[in-house]
Amino acid sequence: MALIVQKYGGTSVGNSSRIKNVASRVAQARKRGDQIVVVVSAMSGVTDNLIKLAKEIMPLPSEREMDVLLATGEQTTIALTAMALHAIDVPAVSLTGAQAGIVTDGVHTKAKIANISPKEVHKLLDAGNVVIVAGFQGQTSDGHITTLGRGGSDLTAIALAAALRADLCQIYTDVDGVYTADPRIVPAARKLSEISYDEMLELAGLGAKVMQSRSVEFAKKFGVTFEVRSSLNDNPGTIVKEETANMESVVIRGVSLDKNQAKVTLALVPDQPGIAARIFKAIGDSAINVDMIVQTASHGTSGATDISFTLDKADLLKARKVLDGIRADAGFKEVIAEENIGKLSIVGVGMRSHTGVAARLFEALATAGVNISMISTSEIKISVVIDLDKGEAAMKAVHAVFLG
Amino acid sequence: MALIVQKYGGTSVGNSSRIKNVASRVAQARKRGDQIVVVVSAMSGVTDNLIKLAKEIMPLPSEREMDVLLATGEQTTIALTAMALHAIDVPAVSLTGAQAGIVTDGVHTKAKIANISPKEVHKLLDAGNVVIVAGFQGQTSDGHITTLGRGGSDLTAIALAAALRADLCQIYTDVDGVYTADPRIVPAARKLSEISYDEMLELAGLGAKVMQSRSVEFAKKFGVTFEVRSSLNDNPGTIVKEETANMESVVIRGVSLDKNQAKVTLALVPDQPGIAARIFKAIGDSAINVDMIVQTASHGTSGATDISFTLDKADLLKARKVLDGIRADAGFKEVIAEENIGKLSIVGVGMRSHTGVAARLFEALATAGVNISMISTSEIKISVVIDLDKGEAAMKAVHAVFLG
Repeated sequence: MALIVQKYGGTSVGNSSRIKNVASRVAQARKRGDQIVVVVSAMSGVTDNLIKLAKEIMPLPSEREMDVLLATGEQTTIALTAMALHAIDVPAVSLTGAQAGIVTDGVHTKAKIANISPKEVHKLLDAGNVVIVAGFQGQTSDGHITTLGRGGSDLTAIALAAALRADLCQIYTDVDGVYTADPRIVPAARKLSEISYDEMLELAGLGAKVMQSRSVEFAKKFGVTFEVRSSLNDNPGTIVKEETANMESVVIRGVSLDKNQAKVTLALVPDQPGIAARIFKAIGDSAINVDMIVQTASHGTSGATDISFTLDKADLLKARKVLDGIRADAGFKEVIAEENIGKLSIVGVGMRSHTGVAARLFEALATAGVNISMISTSEIKISVVIDLDKGEAAMKAVHAVFLG
Repeated sequence: MALIVQKYGGTSVGNSSRIKNVASRVAQARKRGDQIVVVVSAMSGVTDNLIKLAKEIMPLPSEREMDVLLATGEQTTIALTAMALHAIDVPAVSLTGAQAGIVTDGVHTKAKIANISPKEVHKLLDAGNVVIVAGFQGQTSDGHITTLGRGGSDLTAIALAAALRADLCQIYTDVDGVYTADPRIVPAARKLSEISYDEMLELAGLGAKVMQSRSVEFAKKFGVTFEVRSSLNDNPGTIVKEETANMESVVIRGVSLDKNQAKVTLALVPDQPGIAARIFKAIGDSAINVDMIVQTASHGTSGATDISFTLDKADLLKARKVLDGIRADAGFKEVIAEENIGKLSIVGVGMRSHTGVAARLFEALATAGVNISMISTSEIKISVVIDLDKGEAAMKAVHAVFLG
């Protein structure tokens, strides 16, 4: 008898007939003799409606009260899901995050799970029940309701799987799994049968938005193997797990394209210690996330250099203001912004043991007539900034070379 | 500094602008320097929508899960009400029933309050907050969410007022208070400035549906004085409290008319011990509530008697079936049902010390040409069954005689 944690997102429980569909999937799994814990999100649209209601009352509502408000969304779903299981004669009991023993810190709207006491969950499982747990929520040790922020229900599922020492954790969503590339852009993209945590993390940070990084990080930290799969069919999904030796035999796991970045170049920055620090401190203090940073060599005898970095397009205006404010002080000459860029990345633990990967990438792009304006590498990732207009063609070309 | 518990019903918090209105009333009360606890219901319509959603899943959902589901209604309101107070710079913290320390028995959907540990409420009040508590809900001692059934939010308010030793408990509703008669029927009806628990209880049981009996009973048991008043204006309401000596100087507190009853007569019931018991046991076993019961003297030498009783019109069909089933066994001759009746009642603790009240009632009805077909009395109430068509005229006549 295995213990399985299944998580169903907002679309999968979006209305009463979808909730019934979830119930019948759960019932099927239970028929195999396994113990099942089901984690559910709020029905799609519900959270947005609650936020709208709150904004009618006050533009910037208290975060503690937002958590009290939003936690009702998942609480509604757990009750309905339990009922749907009862309707097909499966014993089931619902638990709020607090009731399931999920204790968090007190950072409302983006709380971190501090610990889980799964006593009640075990007790109910041992009594023969399917246990339905509200995702996305917990409570502080002194009893305040908290929520875990974006992707919180995935986190609940993975943390519960860790605390319960579950044999399997399944993240049901509206896609079939993790692909070698976005199939809407690259028709030849294939679903991956497995991927390592680190690869998944790189992909999550690169616009392949199957899951939030924090859930994957949590799974990695606690060694929780999980499967991303669809709630709409019975296809096997993608297993996300600790890196294994044979994973390195595959050079590249996937290709991603982030169209949401902009590039800023600071021209003629004085080549002195402390200048770059001052610039990026000012940027960081404004809560702007910088991704790639590239500094070129000094311009001959001028004693000045160029620094380029990428950031979210949405932050560009704010960044310009910050940079204009410190230009005189930092002594750079000009701020040049480019919005028409895309960041193409290849990810794979196989890079560690395969040489010449970067060269093959550059060659593929050159053959496709794509110019590279920035390069950044990590141990298992190479990212390049290219013309946005050539992004999709570049992606297809790179996919064909490495994954075709 | 006084401690005041204010309860606002579903209509009073029916949308965001009404919630803002509640917040400004609360702020006003707080300006006087008092500590305020606010008990709120679900926004009107919300509970019905949740029930509808549950029925889509299953016709007869589990009562435990119904409680988990319905409790979200009040939880939504407490968060929004706290936000509305924040918006006008009043510090406020919301608490679910469980967080407010409301412990109930485990009878889901109609739980009884077992005890209240108001430590958290006191702590938050002492820190200068308005405390917003979700009405209608609590939790069992082992942590299951429960709801208190119809009128549950009133009960929460009164029980909290008792546990907190509040100086005042105000039940805000959409009527101005308790009237001498329904003003829609008797234009001369007056709002009462005060009424005793017992009178309120008799009226609650007689179709004057301002509050459920159980809340009044709870208030009586724990000596909680409360005021029923409108959330839409600043008129003083009706104080409901322990009977005082001077209350008896008023003969009659109010007149009510229950149009929702039917009358059943069993003709020629054998006048033997145990027959009536057998009949009403069969009725009671079918969960039919019988109100007035009248037995006439034996018919001369026949050794038989007639028994009449009243019951809810909705139960009439069920009652007929039960009675047809036992007729042969119980030996009565015939079942005669009348639906076209009304039950007119006068209520007042003054009846105890004033004689001739019944006679004055019968005279008033006779003068108005109204025939009486059943009479039933208690210490502080006289009820008569009359023709439904003459009900409203009878009410006006009786009101004029006793309260005009």
